[in-house]
Amino acid sequence: MSAEELHINVERLRDDIDTLAQIGRYQDQGIYRMAFIEGDMAGRDWFRQRVSDCGLDFYQDGAANLHARLNWDDKTPSVIAGSHLDTVPGAGHLDGALGVVCALEAVRVLQESGIALARPLEAVSFSDEEGRFGGMFGSQSFIGRVTPEYLHQACDLDGISLTTAMAQYGLDANQALRAQRRSNSIHAYVELHIEQGPVLDRKGLSIGIVDAITGLFKWEITLSGAANHAGTTPMDMRADAFQGLAEFAGQLDRVLAEYGSPRSTATIGRVELKPGAANVVPGQAIFSLDVRDTDSHILEALADALRRSLSAIARRRGLMFEFQVLSEISPVQCDASIMSAIEASVSALELPSTHLSSGAAHDAQMIAGIAPAGMIFVPSKEGRSHSAAEWTAWNDIEAGANTLLNTLKRLAS
Amino acid sequence: MSAEELHINVERLRDDIDTLAQIGRYQDQGIYRMAFIEGDMAGRDWFRQRVSDCGLDFYQDGAANLHARLNWDDKTPSVIAGSHLDTVPGAGHLDGALGVVCALEAVRVLQESGIALARPLEAVSFSDEEGRFGGMFGSQSFIGRVTPEYLHQACDLDGISLTTAMAQYGLDANQALRAQRRSNSIHAYVELHIEQGPVLDRKGLSIGIVDAITGLFKWEITLSGAANHAGTTPMDMRADAFQGLAEFAGQLDRVLAEYGSPRSTATIGRVELKPGAANVVPGQAIFSLDVRDTDSHILEALADALRRSLSAIARRRGLMFEFQVLSEISPVQCDASIMSAIEASVSALELPSTHLSSGAAHDAQMIAGIAPAGMIFVPSKEGRSHSAAEWTAWNDIEAGANTLLNTLKRLAS
Repeated sequence: MSAEELHINVERLRDDIDTLAQIGRYQDQGIYRMAFIEGDMAGRDWFRQRVSDCGLDFYQDGAANLHARLNWDDKTPSVIAGSHLDTVPGAGHLDGALGVVCALEAVRVLQESGIALARPLEAVSFSDEEGRFGGMFGSQSFIGRVTPEYLHQACDLDGISLTTAMAQYGLDANQALRAQRRSNSIHAYVELHIEQGPVLDRKGLSIGIVDAITGLFKWEITLSGAANHAGTTPMDMRADAFQGLAEFAGQLDRVLAEYGSPRSTATIGRVELKPGAANVVPGQAIFSLDVRDTDSHILEALADALRRSLSAIARRRGLMFEFQVLSEISPVQCDASIMSAIEASVSALELPSTHLSSGAAHDAQMIAGIAPAGMIFVPSKEGRSHSAAEWTAWNDIEAGANTLLNTLKRLAS
Repeated sequence: MSAEELHINVERLRDDIDTLAQIGRYQDQGIYRMAFIEGDMAGRDWFRQRVSDCGLDFYQDGAANLHARLNWDDKTPSVIAGSHLDTVPGAGHLDGALGVVCALEAVRVLQESGIALARPLEAVSFSDEEGRFGGMFGSQSFIGRVTPEYLHQACDLDGISLTTAMAQYGLDANQALRAQRRSNSIHAYVELHIEQGPVLDRKGLSIGIVDAITGLFKWEITLSGAANHAGTTPMDMRADAFQGLAEFAGQLDRVLAEYGSPRSTATIGRVELKPGAANVVPGQAIFSLDVRDTDSHILEALADALRRSLSAIARRRGLMFEFQVLSEISPVQCDASIMSAIEASVSALELPSTHLSSGAAHDAQMIAGIAPAGMIFVPSKEGRSHSAAEWTAWNDIEAGANTLLNTLKRLAS
């Protein structure tokens, strides 16, 4: 291990993670810090106090994103590390929180080290990443993508508006329109996050160097045939919509092998058959198709091939098909110089690592729209996340925090 | 056409069908004569009046089955033609009703013909074939299969008991225990019914000579894998329960070809995925499997082969599987001498016909348990039934009625 690498204060980091893990916790059902509820506000108060404890500058922007700043000035582009403190309902203690706490710890260590840095540092927590009001409210405001229409309409599942929820705590949602950061005020953005997938855990590696965040398309497909009596309709007189779906599902592996990359995924997660009775041949199959890859050309090729496959199956089986695009998100490539800084840190720290892509969405995806961005993953035990059973071993957390620390040092030097 | 064949009175038959079709009809939503509701009772009253109009003996047994009798005596086994006057909600005008009205017409014509018959004739309408209280209450009572427990427990979907429903019209449900007919009191049972499937309509044939009523097994199968994030779980680290189901569904045709007969059917009509979200790999697939054939050995072979297929797919994909038998019904073979009588009639009447099996359940299936039974089918337009759109052309109805008439004559001679 290189003697030049810095190391985080393991005790302090662990103490912060453990303390934050109690905020918004409800018995054994996990953590409830959905954006702008009491638990979230308590988490924010705790963060503000920790920033103040170590003498960093605290700044809250119009979207209620929280910034801990070192050597801040208005002219020099900063190096930002961040993630989010809000959670899904019944969450684990690491999704988002780990990235914020490690960012703060890294900035603290760099402050304490007295090392001269060329650039200001910021540890940031973005508001409502998890989506009580749609998702990534904070990072979308940060890149200037939030509109007055969004602010006017955004509601949670209970119909409580974003405006009302923020006003309860003296926050003015309209100020989010002023949270936009100029692109040239950001030198680099790095996000440490749990993988939320099984790859690092299965391979026994501590660090994932993210090279891209996957894009996706999500369709709702309807195959229509004829609902008929299961007893009186011979097999060769049927137009069974479910058999069409089953054949299509059986084609996914072939299509991925022919048109996809090793990173491509295709998932049919929701299926509804009509009329949906055991003794009736299904007249309709309505199902979701979620396809992901890190290369937009591959996504296009997969979409074409899947349409052809569906069309051929429908024609041969006497079915009609139609599909509706539910969402389309473009893949994002991580910045090469940030990846180099992560690689250099991992190598100097002699940590077992691999390159991988992020299959989930993150604030980094937004920031990448206006500035160089990168991500560091640590293992998720058995790939679990969005669950109180979410877990990462302490030595992997330490490895991730040290990687983030030295990456920030390299980027700020 | 043989001059010796009798012919029904087309005008009278059509008038009866049209009149009955108005009883229990609700605007354009079809017919509502579910067992022991007002519409059913009105249909029964109409039938009783028509029996009395032509001077046949009327008899109502303990299960409220209605009998129109010619030359009845207590010693000579009778030839019975029957079906049911009750309907599903929103029914068409032919399912059940056609068999009862044509039975009455056939007995009337034989009465008018003055031909000397060796055996008494009965036209019968069985109670609750369609299952407001479970199905085939009348024919099950008729063969002595109804128990005091059933009578005590039988309820409709609104929780109204059979006992209460019958008592409203002065009927005592417990009398159903006395409705049992001795096996040796029945010479033959013949049921004319719409096919409820597409075979005769597609082939342009007027008459189906039913040689068997299919048996079936119905399973509920659960395949269990692991629910995982669709974005973060690589294809080769999944245990996708739906992909297991899709592969199994794709095996059905092969299993039917290898172990089934041309009459075998296999249907997956109901599917539930858990958690059932577009962005989650399905952890569980719960689905129905309905398999039918007219040969019990083939049904056994199909069950074995399908279990092997499921087991192999589950093992290879790292899934667990379990299944629950929802129902098992043995196939019933139609009586050879009754089939001969139908064939002779069809041949003498020069009607286009084919042998086929019944994929749906009928009262004939019950009667076959204690006496020789047979069925005659007429075409269902596009296979439709249990719907106000149910239709059979008048010339096919006439063909079916004449076939029933001459079959009864042959069997009673």
